[in-house]
Amino acid sequence: MASGFATVFRRWASTTTITVKTAPSKAHHHAPIPSSAFPAGYVLTGVHSGIKKKPGVLDLGVIISTPARPASAAACFTRNAFKAAPVLVSDEVLQKNQGRARAVVVNSGCANAVTGKQGLEDAWAMVRETDQLFHSTSQQSAGHDTLVLSTGVIGQNLPISKIVTALQTTVKPSLASDFEAWERAAKAFMTTDTFPKLRARTFTINGVEYRLAGMDKGAGMIHPNMGPPGALHATLLGCILTDAPISPRSLQSSLTYAVDRSFNSISVDGEMSTNDTILVLANGASQGAPMEEIDEQTDPEAYAVFKKELTAFAIDLAKLVVRDGEGATKFVTVTVQGAQSYSDAHRIASRVSTSALVKTALYGEDANWGRILSATGSVPLSTPLDPTKVSVSFVPSDGSATLPVLVGGEPESVDEVRAKEILSNEDFEVLVDLGTGGSEVARYWTCDFSYEYVRINGDYRS
Amino acid sequence: MASGFATVFRRWASTTTITVKTAPSKAHHHAPIPSSAFPAGYVLTGVHSGIKKKPGVLDLGVIISTPARPASAAACFTRNAFKAAPVLVSDEVLQKNQGRARAVVVNSGCANAVTGKQGLEDAWAMVRETDQLFHSTSQQSAGHDTLVLSTGVIGQNLPISKIVTALQTTVKPSLASDFEAWERAAKAFMTTDTFPKLRARTFTINGVEYRLAGMDKGAGMIHPNMGPPGALHATLLGCILTDAPISPRSLQSSLTYAVDRSFNSISVDGEMSTNDTILVLANGASQGAPMEEIDEQTDPEAYAVFKKELTAFAIDLAKLVVRDGEGATKFVTVTVQGAQSYSDAHRIASRVSTSALVKTALYGEDANWGRILSATGSVPLSTPLDPTKVSVSFVPSDGSATLPVLVGGEPESVDEVRAKEILSNEDFEVLVDLGTGGSEVARYWTCDFSYEYVRINGDYRS
Repeated sequence: MASGFATVFRRWASTTTITVKTAPSKAHHHAPIPSSAFPAGYVLTGVHSGIKKKPGVLDLGVIISTPARPASAAACFTRNAFKAAPVLVSDEVLQKNQGRARAVVVNSGCANAVTGKQGLEDAWAMVRETDQLFHSTSQQSAGHDTLVLSTGVIGQNLPISKIVTALQTTVKPSLASDFEAWERAAKAFMTTDTFPKLRARTFTINGVEYRLAGMDKGAGMIHPNMGPPGALHATLLGCILTDAPISPRSLQSSLTYAVDRSFNSISVDGEMSTNDTILVLANGASQGAPMEEIDEQTDPEAYAVFKKELTAFAIDLAKLVVRDGEGATKFVTVTVQGAQSYSDAHRIASRVSTSALVKTALYGEDANWGRILSATGSVPLSTPLDPTKVSVSFVPSDGSATLPVLVGGEPESVDEVRAKEILSNEDFEVLVDLGTGGSEVARYWTCDFSYEYVRINGDYRS
Repeated sequence: MASGFATVFRRWASTTTITVKTAPSKAHHHAPIPSSAFPAGYVLTGVHSGIKKKPGVLDLGVIISTPARPASAAACFTRNAFKAAPVLVSDEVLQKNQGRARAVVVNSGCANAVTGKQGLEDAWAMVRETDQLFHSTSQQSAGHDTLVLSTGVIGQNLPISKIVTALQTTVKPSLASDFEAWERAAKAFMTTDTFPKLRARTFTINGVEYRLAGMDKGAGMIHPNMGPPGALHATLLGCILTDAPISPRSLQSSLTYAVDRSFNSISVDGEMSTNDTILVLANGASQGAPMEEIDEQTDPEAYAVFKKELTAFAIDLAKLVVRDGEGATKFVTVTVQGAQSYSDAHRIASRVSTSALVKTALYGEDANWGRILSATGSVPLSTPLDPTKVSVSFVPSDGSATLPVLVGGEPESVDEVRAKEILSNEDFEVLVDLGTGGSEVARYWTCDFSYEYVRINGDYRS
C-alpha cells in the first residue's frame, strides 16, 4: 500500500489561506491589587525552574501559610478515572492530616498525569522539598503539610531534579506577601492562559474583617466535574486563600457547595481533565479573629456568610477561566429556568454550553436558536420536556430589551438586525425557559468555538 | 453603554490571515452502480422544487414501492425532545398502518423542525400529495401510505406551495428505476454533503437473491441516538430499500439492531438532531420471493441472515456520513475492547469520538494519547476503570505494525516519527483496551475537527 499512502499523503498537502476573526486581547482582565487586600499570614512566590524551555517563564509556585498552627484545608478533585499523581498525593496528605495543611506547591508545563509509579514518586518529592521550606528540624519526621498541583501535557514525566533544585535555592529568598509575590504565584499556574488570574475580596463576619484571595488557571480542557476528597472523585487548577478561621469540615462543605455553582458550571471545550483541582486554605490569621474556628454546627449564621462569600468569589475566579477560554471571542451566560429540578436545569445548561454547533454559531454571531433547541432537546431528563412550553431569548449585557426568539414552542418573527446587534457584543446571555411551572434555575458560563481553538489544539505539543 | 458597545465592536474587527490544511475531495466515494444491482419494485426521482435558491439543485425526492400490496416499513427516529414535524407525521403514519407504507417523500434545505402547527400541516400536505402519485381513485379516502423526511435549517417554515406544485407536475414524469433515478433521489437528500451517498448490496436467503439499496445524508449535527417508533424517542436521514419479503415486526427489530451498531455509533460533532430518521421499506418484489414474509418466529435462520445483511449495509451507509463529515480530513475508527459490558464500551467509544481535544489532535496529526486517556476516564461506568490495566494503541490501516502508546497504565517510549506516519493517513484506528478481563467490544466511527468545520458552521445560514 506504499503507493496508496503516498497518494493520500499528497492529498493532505492541499492548503488554503483564509482570513479569520481573532480573539481580542484579554490583558485588561489582570490589574494590580493593593497589597492590603490580600489575606494575612501567607507568603508566596513563583520562579522559573526549567520545566518550560523559554528562559524566565515562571513554572513553579509556592504558597505558605505562616502561622505556626496548620491552616484548615479543603479540596475538590477531578472525578476522572485517570487521576494524576498530584491529585492522588494531595488527597492522601489531606486525609492523613484530617483537613489541615500549611503549603501548596504548583507547577505548570507538565501535568504529571498517566506517569505511573515515577509520577507518584515525583509528586511526593515536590511535597517533601516544599515541607523543608517551613518545617523546623523537630517536625521533619512528623508527616507532610504540603498539597501539590500540576498542569500541562499528559503522559510526560516531570524534570524533577530541576524542580527540587529550584525548591532548594531560588524559592525561599523570593517568598513575600506583596502584590508582586501573589502575581508571581498566579503566573506560575499558567499554561495556554493569556493573563494571570488573580482576585481578592474582603468581607465581614461578626464585626471582624476577613480577606479572600485566589488564583486559578485554565483555558482548555475545561469542563470540570469535581467532588470532595475521600470519595476521590480538574486541568483546571485553583487555589483560594483566606485569613478567616473555619473548621476543616465546614471549609470542605462550603467549598463543595461553592465548586458545584462555579467551577463545575463552566465549560470551554467540554473536556474533564485528569488534574482538575481547587484547593482552599483558611489560616485564621486576620487581626481580631477569634481563637474558635467558625463551624456550621456551632455558628450557622457565620458559616452561612462564609459560604456565600466563598461561592461568590469562586464564581468570579471560574468566570475568568471562561473569559480566557482558548481562542474565545465571546463570554456567554447560559441560564436555564423554569425547571422542576436543579439537576435537569444544570444538565441542559451544560449541554447547550458544550454544543459545537451552538458555539460555532456564537463565534459567527449567528442567532441560530434552532441549535440551542436541538441541544436542549437532546438531554435525557427526569421530567420529560413539553416542546410547546419551551421559550428561548437572547439577553443583551447592556440592559437593553431582551429578544425572544421562541415563545411557548412557537418561533417568533426575529428582527435579524437586532439579533446581530446583541450577538456582536462580547458578553450576552442565552435564556432557556422550560416552562414546566417549576422554579429551579441553573447557570453555566461558556465561550465560543473559533478558528484559534483549532489552531491552539491542533498542535499543542509542538 | 453605547460607547462601550462601540469599543467592543471595534475590537472584534481584528482579523488575521492563516494558511490551513483543507479537506481532500471526497467525490470518488460516489460512482455509478449497475442498474441491475438495485432492488426490484421501486421507482424514484429527485427534482428541484425551489426550496433551495440555486437553480437546478435537487431538493425534493420521491421513492415509491410499485407492487400493489403496501411494503413492510420500519423506522428509527431521533430521541430529541424537539421532534420535527416530519418525524411526528411519519411515526403516526407507521402506527396507523401497522408497519406498512408505499412511499417516501424527502426534502432538503429546510428541516421543518420547531415550526409549530404550520409545520405539522405542511408535513401532512407532503404526505397527501405524494399519496396522489400512486393512489387510485378508490384509495383516496383509505388513509396515508407515505412517510416524510426533511433536513436543513431548523425553525423555518417550508415553502409548501412550491413543494406541492413540484409533486403535482415534475415528479411523476421523472420517476424511474435506473441508476440515474436512484442518484437523483440520493442527491435530493443532500445539505452540506459533498457527494451523494448511495450504495447497493446483494444477498441470498433460501436460494433466492435479494437486493438492498439505500441512500443517506449528513455531514454535520451528527451524533444520532435513534429508537424505534411508538417509544418515539435525527439530521441524519437515511432510507434503505429492499425487495426481500419480511414482516413489519421483524423488519423493525432488525432495523433497531442494525441502527444501534451503525448510525447510533457514528459522530461528526456530537450533536443529536431534531430530525434524525432511518426508514426501511421491504416490498418482496424480488423474482422468486415466497408469498410468505420472513419472520423471526417462523424462520429464525432466514431472519438472522437478513439482520446480518441489513446491519452490514447500515454500517456501510453510516460510515459514508462520517467520511463526508463537515471539514473532515480523517476517518477514524475508535474501538474499545476488554470491557465488562457493551454499554460501558459504547459510552467510552462515544466520548473519545466526540472529544474536541482528541478531534483537534487528529486534525493536527498529533499522537496526543493523553487526551484519549482523559476522555476515557471522564465517563461514568457501571464497572469503575482500573487505570493500571488500560492500554492504548494506534492501528494503521495499511496492515503495518500497531503502535502501542500506553500499556497497562504505563506510557511507552513512543517513536514519534512512526506515530506521525500512521496519523498522516486518512484512515486509522484508535484502540483502547480496558483490561477488565471482559470481552465486550464497541466500535465508533468519527472524524477530525478542522478549521473548515468552524467555517461551515460559523455562518451556516448565510
